[in-house]
Amino acid sequence: MLKVLKFGGTSVGTLERIQNVAKIIKDIRDDGHDVVAVVSAMSGETNKLIEYANTFSKNPCEREMDMLLSSGERVTSALLSIALNEDGYATTSMSGREAGIKTTSEHTEARIEEIDTTNMKNAINNGKIIIVAGFQGVSLDNARITTLGRGGSDLSAVAIAGALKADICEIYTDVDGIYTTDPRIEPKAKKLEKISYEEMLELASLGAKVLQNRSVEMAKKLNVNLVSRSSFTPEVEGTLITQEENIMEAPVVSGIALDKNQVRVGMYKVADKPGIAASIFQSLADSNINVDMIVQTVAVDGKADLDFTIPTGDLDKTKKVMDTFMNDVENIDYNEAVCKVSIVGVGMKSHTGVASKAFSSMASENINIRIISTSEIKISMIIEEKYAELAVRALHDAYELDK
Amino acid sequence: MLKVLKFGGTSVGTLERIQNVAKIIKDIRDDGHDVVAVVSAMSGETNKLIEYANTFSKNPCEREMDMLLSSGERVTSALLSIALNEDGYATTSMSGREAGIKTTSEHTEARIEEIDTTNMKNAINNGKIIIVAGFQGVSLDNARITTLGRGGSDLSAVAIAGALKADICEIYTDVDGIYTTDPRIEPKAKKLEKISYEEMLELASLGAKVLQNRSVEMAKKLNVNLVSRSSFTPEVEGTLITQEENIMEAPVVSGIALDKNQVRVGMYKVADKPGIAASIFQSLADSNINVDMIVQTVAVDGKADLDFTIPTGDLDKTKKVMDTFMNDVENIDYNEAVCKVSIVGVGMKSHTGVASKAFSSMASENINIRIISTSEIKISMIIEEKYAELAVRALHDAYELDK
Repeated sequence: MLKVLKFGGTSVGTLERIQNVAKIIKDIRDDGHDVVAVVSAMSGETNKLIEYANTFSKNPCEREMDMLLSSGERVTSALLSIALNEDGYATTSMSGREAGIKTTSEHTEARIEEIDTTNMKNAINNGKIIIVAGFQGVSLDNARITTLGRGGSDLSAVAIAGALKADICEIYTDVDGIYTTDPRIEPKAKKLEKISYEEMLELASLGAKVLQNRSVEMAKKLNVNLVSRSSFTPEVEGTLITQEENIMEAPVVSGIALDKNQVRVGMYKVADKPGIAASIFQSLADSNINVDMIVQTVAVDGKADLDFTIPTGDLDKTKKVMDTFMNDVENIDYNEAVCKVSIVGVGMKSHTGVASKAFSSMASENINIRIISTSEIKISMIIEEKYAELAVRALHDAYELDK
Repeated sequence: MLKVLKFGGTSVGTLERIQNVAKIIKDIRDDGHDVVAVVSAMSGETNKLIEYANTFSKNPCEREMDMLLSSGERVTSALLSIALNEDGYATTSMSGREAGIKTTSEHTEARIEEIDTTNMKNAINNGKIIIVAGFQGVSLDNARITTLGRGGSDLSAVAIAGALKADICEIYTDVDGIYTTDPRIEPKAKKLEKISYEEMLELASLGAKVLQNRSVEMAKKLNVNLVSRSSFTPEVEGTLITQEENIMEAPVVSGIALDKNQVRVGMYKVADKPGIAASIFQSLADSNINVDMIVQTVAVDGKADLDFTIPTGDLDKTKKVMDTFMNDVENIDYNEAVCKVSIVGVGMKSHTGVASKAFSSMASENINIRIISTSEIKISMIIEEKYAELAVRALHDAYELDK
């Protein structure tokens, strides 16, 4: 098998941890597999460099930030390669450029456009373990060093796995997989063996620390089998994230996600003008505000109440936009003390009664649902934030996810 | 003018020092010059990375060491570029690869083979200050990252100055130029305004901390005007190292150099066999031992005494070679308590009596000269080490170098 492995900052955070990663790679190699390992900078290094840059400029040139920050991954790749070499394993480190990763030219947030696999294929054919510096590439237009933004090393790994048609792409972090819900909230949470890309995307908050949505989306697009597992307990099997078809018996509900990073915006008595709602949401979109759930209630007088949610980080921007609509509405309020609880599962598509179980579960705990939205594989509810943990435990119980 | 500037590890050792270097560059730019600055890694960084590598391997793979160590200079180049940018100066950092530096493929000790100046010329034509990561290039054969060994950033700077036909190449360190002798030995030592490449090479011990011989040799070959000056006192003019023709009135003697790193090897009553001396020196050369001064005294019985000097670091190797000649000689002794004092000056060529002044100066201090060797521009003497400082001061005085 050809395995692409990715080790994040914590997994290579110290020299001892790098030695531990070398051990994982050696074990996989000894089992007869070809290995391409993608590595992040040692944890803390990137922040140190950002701090350095910020002593010179609050807003440093992005092209130079890419030159600066891409050095951290190169250091890790060379060190890991040296560690493996010492034990007699043939290795070669590669920078993003050497691994053939070509990107757009948006510095600090470049997207991978194509991968020239010549160097990697040659090295694999020569029996070498490849250690790629993650998070980086070179721009297609002028061959300058670029970086891929947050979660960039995961993207490097998934893209390489896709380009090399690897059998599997294992993302190693300090968490050993995806759980039915956050174990800190519900200790009975269970680790999932398999989950579909679509569910993983909806369960983002459960895997946010582990897998960025960008990587899951790319894995889905390139049909890469992703595994989330831990470099601290490599003996534990992780969670496989794959195509729905590969999951024989999908459970109705896979997990319960919680997102406290939500603000409910209430607009009361919106003027009865044609296109007013469209105009509001267009303005929000123009300001790059990510509006999530929307509910409209039309009253007898023809005036409507409009409820929607935004991420907490967009609150100030949203208030600015809303100020321009003050003449069209009687009142606007912002409630930060809310949260979003979501029930996710591909099995929902073919099962009825999933939503009603959620609602009755909330009712029996006297939790008031402010907004509901449903998709094919997800039911989301906005509730008061103080009930967040209670709601998660009640739903986890109702769908028997601990079984 | 086009100026190539080089800032070593101490000059960029802290964020404050980098800010100071930015100030030097801005002043030069404000005077209307084009600038290419070559930078080293922040002092301490390279050693830290070497330590890291050595925790994994006592003898780490050289190709990986190049990947590892080349990161330090990239960090400095990006940070310096950011600092200049913040003050409104158009800049671009360049890795060795981006600067077009092509080398041989001897990792950790590559030699620069050619420089593709396309990127640099474009940037200069676009009005940009270029900050090049020193010490590194890519191999001509397979485009892997290489490094240039000790003093590598100086070599980068000199080679770039040559390729761009720069008007001057200023090497900034923490020393403000080349002195007539070591000021710690003779406080009356004076800074030289100009000195020829040839003299600089002979005075290596005076400039060893400041300029490696490899760089001076390359500057000579490429006809690059070198300046040694300090980033800590940029207002002080440094020493220009240039072609002899550019120095209007060369003094008879430019400086006095001292080298305590010498061992005198005495071979007594060497067998009167044809070719025995040649055979000894051939064996030493085969072991890469750098034999410096040689004196042979033939006695009445036809047997000769052979005296020569070697660097202290080669002593063990030398003893091994000498052991194979034990049958050809009555006795061998090794004296580490010696030193070499040299008088250097291009003016010697056209002046007589320079050597006799040195000898009488030694005689009047009752210093015994064990070996003498002379070249066109240098007189070297091996004396007892305890007289080293006394001899330097006496010679400095005899040739009136404080005037």
